[in-house]
Amino acid sequence: MKAVRYIEAGRAPEIVDLPKPIAGPGQVLVKIGGAGVCHSDLHVLDHGVGRTGPFTLGHENAGWVEAIGDGVTGWKEGDPVAVYGPWGCGLCRTCQTSAENYCEGHARSPAVGGGLGLDGGMAEYMIVPSPRLLVPLGTLDPAEAAPLSDAGLTPYHAIKAALPLLTPDATILVLGIGGLGHMALQILRAMTPVKIIAGDIDDARLAHAHELGATHTINTRDAHRAAEEILDMVGGRGVAVALDFVGAQPTIDLCCRVVGRASRITVVGLAGGILHYAPNRPPYGCQVSIPYWGSRSELMEVIALAEAGRIRADVEKFPLESAADVYQRLREGRIKGRAVLLP
Amino acid sequence: MKAVRYIEAGRAPEIVDLPKPIAGPGQVLVKIGGAGVCHSDLHVLDHGVGRTGPFTLGHENAGWVEAIGDGVTGWKEGDPVAVYGPWGCGLCRTCQTSAENYCEGHARSPAVGGGLGLDGGMAEYMIVPSPRLLVPLGTLDPAEAAPLSDAGLTPYHAIKAALPLLTPDATILVLGIGGLGHMALQILRAMTPVKIIAGDIDDARLAHAHELGATHTINTRDAHRAAEEILDMVGGRGVAVALDFVGAQPTIDLCCRVVGRASRITVVGLAGGILHYAPNRPPYGCQVSIPYWGSRSELMEVIALAEAGRIRADVEKFPLESAADVYQRLREGRIKGRAVLLP
Amino acid sequence: MKAVRYIEAGRAPEIVDLPKPIAGPGQVLVKIGGAGVCHSDLHVLDHGVGRTGPFTLGHENAGWVEAIGDGVTGWKEGDPVAVYGPWGCGLCRTCQTSAENYCEGHARSPAVGGGLGLDGGMAEYMIVPSPRLLVPLGTLDPAEAAPLSDAGLTPYHAIKAALPLLTPDATILVLGIGGLGHMALQILRAMTPVKIIAGDIDDARLAHAHELGATHTINTRDAHRAAEEILDMVGGRGVAVALDFVGAQPTIDLCCRVVGRASRITVVGLAGGILHYAPNRPPYGCQVSIPYWGSRSELMEVIALAEAGRIRADVEKFPLESAADVYQRLREGRIKGRAVLLP
Amino acid sequence: MKAVRYIEAGRAPEIVDLPKPIAGPGQVLVKIGGAGVCHSDLHVLDHGVGRTGPFTLGHENAGWVEAIGDGVTGWKEGDPVAVYGPWGCGLCRTCQTSAENYCEGHARSPAVGGGLGLDGGMAEYMIVPSPRLLVPLGTLDPAEAAPLSDAGLTPYHAIKAALPLLTPDATILVLGIGGLGHMALQILRAMTPVKIIAGDIDDARLAHAHELGATHTINTRDAHRAAEEILDMVGGRGVAVALDFVGAQPTIDLCCRVVGRASRITVVGLAGGILHYAPNRPPYGCQVSIPYWGSRSELMEVIALAEAGRIRADVEKFPLESAADVYQRLREGRIKGRAVLLP
Repeated sequence: MKAVRYIEAGRAPEIVDLPKPIAGPGQVLVKIGGAGVCHSDLHVLDHGVGRTGPFTLGHENAGWVEAIGDGVTGWKEGDPVAVYGPWGCGLCRTCQTSAENYCEGHARSPAVGGGLGLDGGMAEYMIVPSPRLLVPLGTLDPAEAAPLSDAGLTPYHAIKAALPLLTPDATILVLGIGGLGHMALQILRAMTPVKIIAGDIDDARLAHAHELGATHTINTRDAHRAAEEILDMVGGRGVAVALDFVGAQPTIDLCCRVVGRASRITVVGLAGGILHYAPNRPPYGCQVSIPYWGSRSELMEVIALAEAGRIRADVEKFPLESAADVYQRLREGRIKGRAVLLP
Repeated sequence: MKAVRYIEAGRAPEIVDLPKPIAGPGQVLVKIGGAGVCHSDLHVLDHGVGRTGPFTLGHENAGWVEAIGDGVTGWKEGDPVAVYGPWGCGLCRTCQTSAENYCEGHARSPAVGGGLGLDGGMAEYMIVPSPRLLVPLGTLDPAEAAPLSDAGLTPYHAIKAALPLLTPDATILVLGIGGLGHMALQILRAMTPVKIIAGDIDDARLAHAHELGATHTINTRDAHRAAEEILDMVGGRGVAVALDFVGAQPTIDLCCRVVGRASRITVVGLAGGILHYAPNRPPYGCQVSIPYWGSRSELMEVIALAEAGRIRADVEKFPLESAADVYQRLREGRIKGRAVLLP
Repeated sequence: MKAVRYIEAGRAPEIVDLPKPIAGPGQVLVKIGGAGVCHSDLHVLDHGVGRTGPFTLGHENAGWVEAIGDGVTGWKEGDPVAVYGPWGCGLCRTCQTSAENYCEGHARSPAVGGGLGLDGGMAEYMIVPSPRLLVPLGTLDPAEAAPLSDAGLTPYHAIKAALPLLTPDATILVLGIGGLGHMALQILRAMTPVKIIAGDIDDARLAHAHELGATHTINTRDAHRAAEEILDMVGGRGVAVALDFVGAQPTIDLCCRVVGRASRITVVGLAGGILHYAPNRPPYGCQVSIPYWGSRSELMEVIALAEAGRIRADVEKFPLESAADVYQRLREGRIKGRAVLLP
Repeated sequence: MKAVRYIEAGRAPEIVDLPKPIAGPGQVLVKIGGAGVCHSDLHVLDHGVGRTGPFTLGHENAGWVEAIGDGVTGWKEGDPVAVYGPWGCGLCRTCQTSAENYCEGHARSPAVGGGLGLDGGMAEYMIVPSPRLLVPLGTLDPAEAAPLSDAGLTPYHAIKAALPLLTPDATILVLGIGGLGHMALQILRAMTPVKIIAGDIDDARLAHAHELGATHTINTRDAHRAAEEILDMVGGRGVAVALDFVGAQPTIDLCCRVVGRASRITVVGLAGGILHYAPNRPPYGCQVSIPYWGSRSELMEVIALAEAGRIRADVEKFPLESAADVYQRLREGRIKGRAVLLP
């Protein structure tokens, strides 16, 4: 089968012929229906994942069960599945509760999942090391659903942790209405009654945010003026939750200026900003967090939201063979929505 | 190897010679260090578990990993382990979060665990179907620790769900200071600052409750007078949480009389009582629940409490061969603490 | 001023001329814009509230601040307000956290609020004993908003407590799509992604439920068949939350049959049914509760939902003078939506 | 009466004769039994509180109700009380739920409580603007209990927010075993089963920590070595919660090095350090917060802990007249435990 491979840090991905893998005891072989192309892959291609490699890329995967290894129960050939991405040890207390994204052994493990040090889903088939890492897809098309396992799950996890603050009288600020941000708006509209201010430096994206249910939109190019406008809207109470899908210094600083006491700032974007937390800056009682991906049970909830038609990723499909070109376009900002490779 | 077997409903258990089992793919073979003898086994012996049987008894088990099947990682021969008891499907959302005690497939499954429809731990060896069902025992002696997996885990689960109500200004009523109740008192003392009223009809048990840290003890033989006394102690606020390890009609009714508004009644004992809930009887906002066992991650926490020396089960050890006699003594109320069979 | 008065148990309400009240120290005088007519008033008229009386009826009130007593700060004449209904002591720990509906002193207090032992809002003016019992109405019309303080707040409180179970993959059953039930559906749609099965014995109400966003509707006249249908829809997992706005024996029994393990049954309706809870009936881990009204901070959230246009009570307006006739029509089931009296 | 007054920023406090105040409508006059002397007063003396002043110092107060103003109910002369310190608007949603420490109007208010812009408790009598700001003291001696309202409440609030992470298998790091830190250890021992590592640069304080129940103690003068030792103790999982009562750059940096994924860092000390949060430094999923004081209902819980004998502040008593000397000794680090002024 053909596979898109990371070879070594700083080298372009290569398309390689590999034998079809075989599911060992306890493993599941998944026939890939779609593999999402994620910005974080560019970081992998440039810097590697520890000392691992070469390996097949692709950590946003969905498809069908092709074969089950000895000892696997509960699944059969043809079952449509999403593949949960962050593979932990499966045994520590955190993994036991399904939050493998925070596995206690991560620090000791060079590879953190398929496509991230181990063979991923940019191929015709993929080995999943345990059935616990599969989620039933129901009636969803794997090619459409693949991005849910990261671009859907990551904002879902960030929002779920903030739910107690997302009451009808509260306001959330969502910065960056791109791949994750546009999913976040849909998730917020489906899950909460909170008032939503969407911020971005691109007016077309703000128009999209408005369509997806943002209560207000604001161009944040002039960050100082944006902060004033936001504070005018929310009054002394301030913003209850700020969700930053950019993570650059100006967006992080904007979050810190507009949140109120006992609020929450969650930074998801990785654009290099640092949040400096001093007494009452951001205000006292603010909870700051940089979360990572999401849990297995949260992925089940994301799939359920998509099955109910409440969320949908904007997907552009490409043949597996065009991977190098797709990565180049991603690097240049020429992908709208989420690119998905089809084997 | 010798094994204590359930044969059919209404028949005494039998000691049978069986071949040493072999761990299949994905399974773990555990060498048993101790198997607890639980009251609920008497119900199994009398009424069976669905249409299952014969099977080896014993659902409170601890020992050492003897062998691992193909595809099992993370464990090696000799590792001391507790065996988690309620075996679910492992794949539903509830099992994924480690609460197999509430597996969504329970209604469809005749067997609910080793010793409960499948072969349990009253034998030299036992097959555990997945490594996810094992918890590291650390430095604990398996013969001492075996009862933790039920007599420790069940009250722990009941208490953990009530934690937000167990504040320093609140009062809990614990009824029935037997096998589970005496563990509950230790767990409450280790985990919460709540004031504890312990109730029982046996003064010796009340003296034990006092030693274990109960703030007040009360003989509940005269339930009417006990209710008056409790209400005098707690005033108009009422008891915040009532935890009933008896579950007979008089104990359930006593709980309903003394709790306040926005309180909680948890019935763990299975002595045949029914809680009748009508508007404001028990008071408005009371949460009533009859929980079952506990989750895998909660068992990890119970083991940690025991390792830290904060809880300890009173254990009486017996050779495996005396199982029939032990069950008879249990039936007659002649077992003090928890009986553990040693192979 | 004219006021609709409860005189004594079993006697019709009377319209009486009273002097305009004066706000004492710490009190607020509210000019009434609307007073909702609630089913529970019929119980008050028939049976009284302890030994209190006569008093002005009306516990669902909204209007404008008319005057403030000495020592009151933060409010000024003309501010539009909703009046929070269940008046507690204001000092116990529960009242301190705004949940006066569960005031620790309720058992000792004969009167539980304006219109419920003390003078309520079916008059031109009403004394509110403390500014803590007022919530800003924002841009809402008091005549439209009055029912929110009970018909909105009561289901909101019941739903808020169940939120952690109302995930996208879960199903809620809502029984009784009348005054509170139709608010519950709107609240659920605004606040959660849960799948909603609405049940009623009236097909017109089920059609209304469908318009309000129920995923499925089911006529529950044949309770046995309804249970089978519901179980077919939800599979082995069962219903995650059942919310009963009827509270008759058949509806309570239906809830018990269809919920799954680790689920929740909340009975709000007071039609005389009793929930009998025995081990595994309803299933293990089910949380059963009969809540009462809601908290001050929850009323703030309800008002915010209404201001955002997410919920709306169906209101029929009547002049204060027609109170006796309106109560008679309510008794005969001839009020559609919520009746509101205008002074 | 004599009162210890802040005059203006940078000036020593002065003892002044004032008339005995009178409780206006809605107010309570408290006869002071003790007023704690807090480090943060030094900041007040040096820098003021906004543009306020002069005012009587003292924000940790306890005593007895001396007189109640018109419209106040629920209290009578002689009732022993603690005075809740952070006075909010009392009406916003946050104040309604008792968390006046996070009042939504704080940004607009120059004075934040008695002794902090308004007259406090370093006098014979003190006006409390509303009975909601009083908590019954029960059997506690006001002179002993005064520090609980800040030195007890502040760590209690920080710990309460972290409770879900403080499981028996988890480890907390407490840095700085001074006035607040030694209360934190007692609160942790009373409320949680967590393993406690106490860190300080003073060996005498570490010995005290050991007596108060710390599982391990560690001298943090060599921060690098301390981090290594801590990581050796907790393994790959890392510290679950780090509670920093110093707040200097080295202590904050130490916290960041030793916590694990999905952990929590709470900085309470105000020694000028800044926490720099970048992706995975501290590890992903870590919740960082700088909280402020605590809520009214939490103060009730702190009082309950003290009444039960579970926590106790080390108190040194001084006559009111020696205030200037006491502040000087505090500045020079010559106060052991908490100084309390007695009028």
